[in-house]
Amino acid sequence: MSQPIDPTLFPFFNPAGIAVIGASTTPTKLGFGVARNLVRSGYTGAIHFVNPRGDRLLERPLYPTVADVPDPVDLAVVIVPAPHAAATLAEIGRRGIRAAIIASGGFRETGPEGAALEAECLRVAGEFGIRLIGPNCVGLINTHLPLDTTFLPPPGPTPGDIAFISHSGAICAAVTDWARGQGFGLSHLISLGNQIDVRETDTLAPMAADPHTKVITLYLEGIRDGRRFVRVAREVSRHKPIIALKVGRYESGRRAVAGHTGALAGQESAFNAAFRRAGVIRANTVEELFDWAKALAWCPPAAGPEVAVLTNAGGPGVTAADALESCGLRLATLRPETEAALRAILPADANTHNPVDMLAAATAGQYAESLRLLLDDPNVHSVMVILPPPPMESAGGVARVLIPIIYATVKPVVVALMGERMIQEAVEYFRAARVPEYRFPERAAAALAVLTERAGKVRAADFDVERPPLDDVRPDEARRVLDACRAAAGDAAGFLPYEVVDALLAAYGIPTPRAAIAATAAEAVDLAWQVGFPVALKIASPDIVHKTEAGGVLLNLSGPDAVKKGFADIMSSARAAVPEARIDGVHVQRMVTAGQEVIIGAVHDPQFETIVMFGSGGIEVEGLRDVEFALAPLNEAEAAGLLERTWAGRRLAGFRNLPPADRAAVLDIIRRLGQLAADFPELAEIELNPVRVLPEGEGAVAVDARARFTSSQTP
Amino acid sequence: MSQPIDPTLFPFFNPAGIAVIGASTTPTKLGFGVARNLVRSGYTGAIHFVNPRGDRLLERPLYPTVADVPDPVDLAVVIVPAPHAAATLAEIGRRGIRAAIIASGGFRETGPEGAALEAECLRVAGEFGIRLIGPNCVGLINTHLPLDTTFLPPPGPTPGDIAFISHSGAICAAVTDWARGQGFGLSHLISLGNQIDVRETDTLAPMAADPHTKVITLYLEGIRDGRRFVRVAREVSRHKPIIALKVGRYESGRRAVAGHTGALAGQESAFNAAFRRAGVIRANTVEELFDWAKALAWCPPAAGPEVAVLTNAGGPGVTAADALESCGLRLATLRPETEAALRAILPADANTHNPVDMLAAATAGQYAESLRLLLDDPNVHSVMVILPPPPMESAGGVARVLIPIIYATVKPVVVALMGERMIQEAVEYFRAARVPEYRFPERAAAALAVLTERAGKVRAADFDVERPPLDDVRPDEARRVLDACRAAAGDAAGFLPYEVVDALLAAYGIPTPRAAIAATAAEAVDLAWQVGFPVALKIASPDIVHKTEAGGVLLNLSGPDAVKKGFADIMSSARAAVPEARIDGVHVQRMVTAGQEVIIGAVHDPQFETIVMFGSGGIEVEGLRDVEFALAPLNEAEAAGLLERTWAGRRLAGFRNLPPADRAAVLDIIRRLGQLAADFPELAEIELNPVRVLPEGEGAVAVDARARFTSSQTP
Repeated sequence: MSQPIDPTLFPFFNPAGIAVIGASTTPTKLGFGVARNLVRSGYTGAIHFVNPRGDRLLERPLYPTVADVPDPVDLAVVIVPAPHAAATLAEIGRRGIRAAIIASGGFRETGPEGAALEAECLRVAGEFGIRLIGPNCVGLINTHLPLDTTFLPPPGPTPGDIAFISHSGAICAAVTDWARGQGFGLSHLISLGNQIDVRETDTLAPMAADPHTKVITLYLEGIRDGRRFVRVAREVSRHKPIIALKVGRYESGRRAVAGHTGALAGQESAFNAAFRRAGVIRANTVEELFDWAKALAWCPPAAGPEVAVLTNAGGPGVTAADALESCGLRLATLRPETEAALRAILPADANTHNPVDMLAAATAGQYAESLRLLLDDPNVHSVMVILPPPPMESAGGVARVLIPIIYATVKPVVVALMGERMIQEAVEYFRAARVPEYRFPERAAAALAVLTERAGKVRAADFDVERPPLDDVRPDEARRVLDACRAAAGDAAGFLPYEVVDALLAAYGIPTPRAAIAATAAEAVDLAWQVGFPVALKIASPDIVHKTEAGGVLLNLSGPDAVKKGFADIMSSARAAVPEARIDGVHVQRMVTAGQEVIIGAVHDPQFETIVMFGSGGIEVEGLRDVEFALAPLNEAEAAGLLERTWAGRRLAGFRNLPPADRAAVLDIIRRLGQLAADFPELAEIELNPVRVLPEGEGAVAVDARARFTSSQTP
Repeated sequence: MSQPIDPTLFPFFNPAGIAVIGASTTPTKLGFGVARNLVRSGYTGAIHFVNPRGDRLLERPLYPTVADVPDPVDLAVVIVPAPHAAATLAEIGRRGIRAAIIASGGFRETGPEGAALEAECLRVAGEFGIRLIGPNCVGLINTHLPLDTTFLPPPGPTPGDIAFISHSGAICAAVTDWARGQGFGLSHLISLGNQIDVRETDTLAPMAADPHTKVITLYLEGIRDGRRFVRVAREVSRHKPIIALKVGRYESGRRAVAGHTGALAGQESAFNAAFRRAGVIRANTVEELFDWAKALAWCPPAAGPEVAVLTNAGGPGVTAADALESCGLRLATLRPETEAALRAILPADANTHNPVDMLAAATAGQYAESLRLLLDDPNVHSVMVILPPPPMESAGGVARVLIPIIYATVKPVVVALMGERMIQEAVEYFRAARVPEYRFPERAAAALAVLTERAGKVRAADFDVERPPLDDVRPDEARRVLDACRAAAGDAAGFLPYEVVDALLAAYGIPTPRAAIAATAAEAVDLAWQVGFPVALKIASPDIVHKTEAGGVLLNLSGPDAVKKGFADIMSSARAAVPEARIDGVHVQRMVTAGQEVIIGAVHDPQFETIVMFGSGGIEVEGLRDVEFALAPLNEAEAAGLLERTWAGRRLAGFRNLPPADRAAVLDIIRRLGQLAADFPELAEIELNPVRVLPEGEGAVAVDARARFTSSQTP
């Protein structure tokens, strides 16, 4: 299933023998830590230690050089000072080892000198065909093999079903320690460090293939080769959930941009679009990452959003109901039979409507019987059990009777255990039984929402959608137009003349009003008669991007006199506003005043290539921020998702006296613009604003458009 | 300082003697639990137990009746079955006790019979002048007096500086248990139950006056008499922070509404507006409630939003920076002197820019010295110290050297301790030293944000603002207009004719276009000449609320022929759209087409009286949801806050080619409409949409308006 695993990575995940280069007998050194962990881990392959000083370590010989290490050996762990790393890699290569983890620091993270050392390592690795993890990393833990190449202070993580892949070593150390206290185990821990070779994307297929891993969690500081990540992650996540915590928002400064799309398409929008395409669930904190991973690893899928809440007190029930609603879930409406059966076993004062409140005197038996009834109700897709310190019972006793019922059901059950000391026994029972427990209802609700969303995606076969290419676009024509323009512009970065943009749009079948350039007022009047009144006049200048602000736009001119005067006004306003501007004349366009106004744009993203934006158009785009993003090219369902997630898109269905607009025409333009932008990555930005969407069946027209070349240095 | 304490409440907070009515010798009964906790608590006043069966309990006599209880006694704790509660209260009253906690359940929460028992208790309490807490509550804990009237299983909370006041008993039980594990204590725990007498608002002044309480936390399921809560909470929170967790969102169904304001002004908007006015900080989860309370109780105020982050690893530093940014805080720019001093004590590879990364080998001494340097930098307002399991040091050792420095500073320092077992010693040191510690940087950042916000409010003397009444409004005139209208409408609920609304607005000095009703096309043409072309025509009918949808609006008619035809068109469209509508004719108004469009509305809220809404106007109000709310009446600063929190408001300052609009005129209309709606609570809803805001100095005009009477049954 899923992606094939690159065989050169096998030694990282199931090595026959490991050599620790830089193993040390000094207990405070990392080289001792690695040796200790490897031996302690119970790794059953061959373990070899290398240190030029010889001697023995942990009842094993210390070989003076790698060359002395006997077979079998197919993985090296390197903890030598950075300046010696490249030479060590060469020795490793000569010994025939083709996989190495460089744990040592002192490379790129320390500055240019370190970066040079790192480059040298990569060169040597290339020479010998050695795959590298690191440098500046913690290494690998595989709790099931078992294997531990890290120097983290023991004990390591308990065996579990969550793989954790991290760009940060410190986060690995923290999570390893924290996970124990939180009662979940890990299948794998992979610390990637500076990623000169093996990156997060490379680890996905091995984790997908690992039978012990149920959920893959990622701590990401950024992604190089974003499209490859999306492709692989999408293939993996159709079978196994991936949850990512992506940090580094604060560092992602805005690009130099002129259009709305560029201004709004920050790195975060791109990541959100990429994660959506890849089916990756995005967490916002480490706690969410593992709250959700536990639920996905341990619970069956939720068949829908209807949740039953079982509680022994009103307050927590209200809290749970609020939390469910704010996560997009709903309180299930119980069947009358279920409510009747609950009434039969609960006191008269109990509330048998959902949230079901059994009252404070609820016994373990009532908890058990009520849970069974809720799970039997076909209107219930999942259950949240709330357990504050029960006044009349031990929480542990309640846990003991609930666990067998939870095992027997195909519906997810999560537990909100409220308290600390008085619920500790129950916490331990639930953890041992792998039932997700959370301290308060809010976190339990969020976990149920993730379960529900994931199941919905799998059910809807979201991962199977295809992205058929548009067959009625003319890339050759667009290429010709672009090349001619680029040649004329002397290959400089900058905005394209409107005629060129119009021609590109025509090549991709995107409707625009008919337009032509008038160099004189008389020409403008002639053209206005040709395209038909009323007309719009717009300044034609490669140097004036915000035409309206420059006084370069006049709308709705209904006769020749107005056009004549308008031509003169525009020319003088534009000259006054941007004195140095090259002015080619004035565009004369048929006015399109009807229809709803939207914006459709695309930008080239350094990590994820082409990103499409859709939303409320006009000049207030940044103010309203009613925009959404998707990777391009995109299919109709993905384009429809942009409409559903924005008010501008929902409004197209009609609103008060606004008639339903031509949604199909908008979807078509979104796809066409996405394809155009994806086909021509030299377009840094292309934006249709506004697009006027006419009533159903009448189409949509890109009333104005602009596009910008990337500088050819940084395509 | 702050609010005076109602002397009738004194016995709850410092009783001379307590009688437990229903004290039991059976250890599984709540009546035993109360007796046990009271004795265990160390309460130094007189403790009396009452049970008709006599005997002894915990080495004290069991008096058969309350009448037998000797002096001193001024507080009764009642744990008798609900049907006996009223009779017990009468005995308590006859004994001269004037304060009682009814812990028993079986009242309103169980249905109409229980509600009747509750009403009878209230009646008896009124007869004797007894103040009541409960019924159906856990009772009171005062850890410093000490006093514990609850039946919660011991141990109770440790003494601390956070008061917790709760509408839910189960949440009290959970928080009491959980707080111990989280390492913070409580000063008071007050469980209010069904609140037939003493409510959350009554407890605020006693907590404000309590020297042991530094922060007041509330768990609220709703508030009756919202205005009183706002008044008292505002007075209290100017001296002592109040944090509230308000649940019950999912229960707050929408009211029957016709306007945009009513549709958007849900209970949550009202609570947000009320909490803002009251200076109450709103938490979303129990964890946030106490995360923030700890910080406010233990840290000095933050002088500004510039935060320094001190870490020994890059990943957590990035996470912290993200979290700070998303909380509205900023990474401080360190002074060159600080960076130089850091470089002198840290390794060459360390990052001395903020976030300061000392690298994994950081020693306790480096942590200490770096923290000192950061705190000495005047650019730094607060510090987040991040402590993953340090590879080379014990986290406990680091904590030990940091604590004296944190004690000595006047700037807040919070700690993100990442891990579990390896950081446990440090956790305990920090907790004992009352330094707020959080498991990950995200929660630490949120706490710093709350500290910063609170300090900002106190500094800005936000609590001292006055709300001077508007002196140029004519409530008598408005009263006359309204009464006449109400009389004409036969006192029915419903929409007011436009002329009436216009007259109300005139009485409160809110500008509208001149308008008059034409009954015939000829009259319409005459009126149009009077008000001046172009004009708008709008159907005049008390039965047509959404005029545009009914084809009842024509805009921008520039000559008499257009008006004549328009009159006929509107009359026939409106008749076709709403055949049963009473039609008074057509309003003829001068057109106001210029200016930015906003909405200003007000609704009457059942809990918080009048609420004002401001935002993006037009017909898409609900779609764009660019609206904000405030309690009315409001002063100019509060009105300005509405503008700052909406795009419609920020846009008034000018945007691209939109010139700056008359912000002052908008503030004026907001205040006038708020005053009008507050003065006439029979107006369920009054809404100006759109208000057209002209360029600076030219004013703003309410182009359309509507208002609705409450039905006189439910004012």
